[in-house]
Amino acid sequence: MKIAVVGLGIIGGSYCKALKKYTDHYVIGINRTRSTAEKALAEGSIDKIGTPQELGSADLIILTMYPQADIDFIKENGKYIAHGALVTDASGIKTAICPRLCELAAEFGFVFVGSHPMAGKEKNGYEVSEAELYKGASFIITPCGAEQRYVDTLSNLAKSIGFSTIKITTPEEHDRMIAFTSQLPHALACAYVLSPCCPNHKGFSAGSYRDVSRVANINSSLWSELFLENKEPLTAELEQLIENLNKIINAVKAEDKKALTDILERGHRVKQSLGE
Amino acid sequence: MKIAVVGLGIIGGSYCKALKKYTDHYVIGINRTRSTAEKALAEGSIDKIGTPQELGSADLIILTMYPQADIDFIKENGKYIAHGALVTDASGIKTAICPRLCELAAEFGFVFVGSHPMAGKEKNGYEVSEAELYKGASFIITPCGAEQRYVDTLSNLAKSIGFSTIKITTPEEHDRMIAFTSQLPHALACAYVLSPCCPNHKGFSAGSYRDVSRVANINSSLWSELFLENKEPLTAELEQLIENLNKIINAVKAEDKKALTDILERGHRVKQSLGE
Repeated sequence: MKIAVVGLGIIGGSYCKALKKYTDHYVIGINRTRSTAEKALAEGSIDKIGTPQELGSADLIILTMYPQADIDFIKENGKYIAHGALVTDASGIKTAICPRLCELAAEFGFVFVGSHPMAGKEKNGYEVSEAELYKGASFIITPCGAEQRYVDTLSNLAKSIGFSTIKITTPEEHDRMIAFTSQLPHALACAYVLSPCCPNHKGFSAGSYRDVSRVANINSSLWSELFLENKEPLTAELEQLIENLNKIINAVKAEDKKALTDILERGHRVKQSLGE
Repeated sequence: MKIAVVGLGIIGGSYCKALKKYTDHYVIGINRTRSTAEKALAEGSIDKIGTPQELGSADLIILTMYPQADIDFIKENGKYIAHGALVTDASGIKTAICPRLCELAAEFGFVFVGSHPMAGKEKNGYEVSEAELYKGASFIITPCGAEQRYVDTLSNLAKSIGFSTIKITTPEEHDRMIAFTSQLPHALACAYVLSPCCPNHKGFSAGSYRDVSRVANINSSLWSELFLENKEPLTAELEQLIENLNKIINAVKAEDKKALTDILERGHRVKQSLGE
């Protein structure tokens, strides 16, 4: 296939590098900042620097910009996409983006299948992209009504570049689960490091501090967009968490050892039942 | 020195193994369950199985049981301890234990210096103890008025078995910091995995889920004791966290992108300023 990757940040850059390393597909890199695309070409991460006007030659287009930027890009450049070409995104939210991209697919005659590569780092940009980023990670697909063969194309491609789990789901289920597995930990990490104790943690901390605070090193602009586009599921998870934390506070304040042990034991059992 | 380690769980067992591996000290193991002590002796983790009545031969006694059990042990067996011997504990809380042990030290004529080895695993017991547990970890000392030479003895011993950071502080400061760096993440982990989404996380999760949920695999009985003995600092940290989470919720609900980005950016800057 000829694959156009739009956006050469950590996600797009890693797609290009992995595609070049593990597959024989021809990779076209499209990026707003020309110098990054030139670097990718010089390093052999892409076969060609493309422009939106050249999208017509691509069999598969992978959008890896911010959610709203993906939509704006297609609105403007959908007319260049070949009839029947497959377009996917890489957004961390789906309900706010999939229906709109499906409409644009119908308008311009391409096929849209949503996807979310569950990988990243605490740093962003092409510089930290790597061919191994997707190794062992989950690849979530939201078919959004596309024919099975398109889903298969995407699924096989994901496996070929290292993803170990393929999860097929709806945008709604995706967003509900991601609110819990990914957005909540990011919100937590930021809220956590804002404790006045945080700047003095060294010498008093070990793995627990490191783990909870890790993702506080956040891209605040991207994540605030992701949070706002997943408003209900995220606030529901946050409120649920606060409710559970309040149970712990109340048990501690009441010096109710039985109630406290019960809550902690319930957490312990969930982890154990998952074999973690 | 002759060192008696009281309690051969993960902490005590790791002390024994590290002392045998990295020092020439003579190690006496004292444990309620005889079979564990016999296993430790057979494996060469200790030089001798001791009894409380033989504590008089020890220059240093390390208590590694639960906080209240440490106190009960000394109340009952303090009379056997040699005059001028050094006693330390390994508890994760200090204000609730140090003053009481100082009183007992005065009563029985030994010297008490509190300490907290900042290491552990998600599993407990002698079986998972290891000589390398303390490598690179922090060793917190609460001198509680003891002469500097005793603090130095403990500090040098800690370095000799792998601790890389020695932190000298008061019980109050220790407990305030530990509420943030250790207890809060444990409370959080349990509250987090109680979300109804948790049992279905597989395929939707990556590093963020893994990191926040890790310590939910908790020893609920030990940690409820630690929480209750650090009531004020822990509830203050929990309430502070909830306040910060509510700011995030409010910004999301109000769709206030600027306010939301500001909070996340503040978290990002704290992490960055710490070079993490």
